[in-house]
Amino acid sequence: MTSREDEEKRGRVRRRITLADVARQVGVSTMTASRAISKPELVTPALRQQIERAMQDLGYVPNRAARALATSRSNVISVLIPSLSNAVFTDVLAGIQDAVDEEGVQVLIGNTRYSDKEERKLVGIHLQSNPDGVLLTGLGQSEEVRRMLAASGVPTVSMMDLSIGEGEYSVGLSQFDASYTMTRYLIDKGYRRIGFIAAQLDERTLKRAEGWRAALRAAGLYAPEREVLVPDPSTVALGAELLGRLLAVAPDCDAAFCCNDDLAYGAIYQCQRRGIAVPRQLAICGFNDLPQSAWMVPSLTTVGTPRYRIGFEAAILLKQLINGEKPARQHIDLGFTLMAREST
Amino acid sequence: MTSREDEEKRGRVRRRITLADVARQVGVSTMTASRAISKPELVTPALRQQIERAMQDLGYVPNRAARALATSRSNVISVLIPSLSNAVFTDVLAGIQDAVDEEGVQVLIGNTRYSDKEERKLVGIHLQSNPDGVLLTGLGQSEEVRRMLAASGVPTVSMMDLSIGEGEYSVGLSQFDASYTMTRYLIDKGYRRIGFIAAQLDERTLKRAEGWRAALRAAGLYAPEREVLVPDPSTVALGAELLGRLLAVAPDCDAAFCCNDDLAYGAIYQCQRRGIAVPRQLAICGFNDLPQSAWMVPSLTTVGTPRYRIGFEAAILLKQLINGEKPARQHIDLGFTLMAREST
Repeated sequence: MTSREDEEKRGRVRRRITLADVARQVGVSTMTASRAISKPELVTPALRQQIERAMQDLGYVPNRAARALATSRSNVISVLIPSLSNAVFTDVLAGIQDAVDEEGVQVLIGNTRYSDKEERKLVGIHLQSNPDGVLLTGLGQSEEVRRMLAASGVPTVSMMDLSIGEGEYSVGLSQFDASYTMTRYLIDKGYRRIGFIAAQLDERTLKRAEGWRAALRAAGLYAPEREVLVPDPSTVALGAELLGRLLAVAPDCDAAFCCNDDLAYGAIYQCQRRGIAVPRQLAICGFNDLPQSAWMVPSLTTVGTPRYRIGFEAAILLKQLINGEKPARQHIDLGFTLMAREST
Repeated sequence: MTSREDEEKRGRVRRRITLADVARQVGVSTMTASRAISKPELVTPALRQQIERAMQDLGYVPNRAARALATSRSNVISVLIPSLSNAVFTDVLAGIQDAVDEEGVQVLIGNTRYSDKEERKLVGIHLQSNPDGVLLTGLGQSEEVRRMLAASGVPTVSMMDLSIGEGEYSVGLSQFDASYTMTRYLIDKGYRRIGFIAAQLDERTLKRAEGWRAALRAAGLYAPEREVLVPDPSTVALGAELLGRLLAVAPDCDAAFCCNDDLAYGAIYQCQRRGIAVPRQLAICGFNDLPQSAWMVPSLTTVGTPRYRIGFEAAILLKQLINGEKPARQHIDLGFTLMAREST
């Protein structure tokens, strides 16, 4: 095996997959492959299918006609985030835009809505604009998306989580450690029956749940009935509902760790409606430290996450990769801050 | 004057301004004008300045090299919003994306940060992508931005406010009427000394202030010392501060109308910290009806605005203009809803 084939085998191809590669795989001329795409009625359905399968296997993305004339830089970067209504990601975007603003770089924003299918669709659309680089959220991309990105040869950086992969780049924090630290803090404050409520159940939420479990297990305090996890989108209203559910199945809880601040706001409002004193009867904490958390009554104990800096540093790292520079670090851990306030 | 010149005079040119137009205005060949742009060191500073001024006067935007080969549709639409951290505009964006999603249209999002200068810069950058259409926020664009957009020939639709211009298109609501209605509601509830706190002071905020003033004047209740308006960005923290300022200058207020929900949250938290009972001692209301407003304790009286639908309908209207169809209406008033809750 040549070193090139070896490299391809390991999925680290940095060269762009062309139509010629697709044609070679199928065993037809590039012209025939081109015709099958632009004028499908001129080829047999069987050949069309073969070519489509080869395009998918190789992660080939048809290029804009304009591409041929374009300069090698498009000055476009693609950003894929899972939500536009979540303040966490608008902070990340602000950081990205501040990092690229002065250079007239266009930021193409794709909202994946926490869906693998949407992400795949958006990657396909964005790659047609020949972005110079792609910023991804999290590490849970589907195999197909990974293949498309590898085939495009476009540098990518993951935001929010920390990857450990060799050929990968990431900027974020350890969601597990942050959640473990918060749970440990609650235990140290004397809380013993600590519930956990979570929504959306994306990879970051699941890591936070793991951190909570691990800290409680280490202290001999873990009880599975005290976790209420639902896949619905996270809202203040859902936080109120989930706190109700938690207290229905585990009425002896003395604290509730909410996997984000929105849920925690709802949980506090629910306590206020039911006449449950926070923190005297039930402590509440959140995750992210949105601007309101310091101001509400009682102010919310939560984990501060450097969202703006994650966006900013990820964009800087991506720019280095685009310029062919070797970044000092592949994985940038920006840490977190425990914000102890009135609600615990 | 020919009808063409006449039309140009009225700023209604729909044809794209080319480099040839710039060259003609300066009295040089197109090649010289082109050289002045791409290799400025080859022409005299005086000529360079003349050409720059002509570009600015005509609203000429240099085209991407790729443009020549591109098809007539770019399948890109440009969206300019004043904030990405304000939930109002993320709702608008969600509506836009849902309206165009199925068609593989790319949404180029520009965050103007409530700045005319940023807006001008972003319009310049976005027009280089040859968008099929542009969605603008509000009606307060600078003359230069209007000229650039007119020169590009790209259809535009304004969101949030309602314009009255003949050749213009808008989707929104009457900010004045909504604010007038809320103030009238407070008067009808028996409140007599109604304060107003506002931040950012963008055009929509100023119209809300006008609506509040008009309703109080009509009832003989207007008192200028009861308005606290500051240009700072709107946050929960600022709401707490502004309520403090209002009560310092007008301690007899029996209600405070906050120009948006974030400020109202801060005002309620401030009351809770100071032991002021809401609404018994002071009524508080907001504007926009963000998701949390129904859930907080006390729940917030506010004006519900159809933000998602504004984005959705504006994108549909823009698509009609892009397709050369004649829309049924130039200005779509989507109205508002008074949400009377516990805080008044």
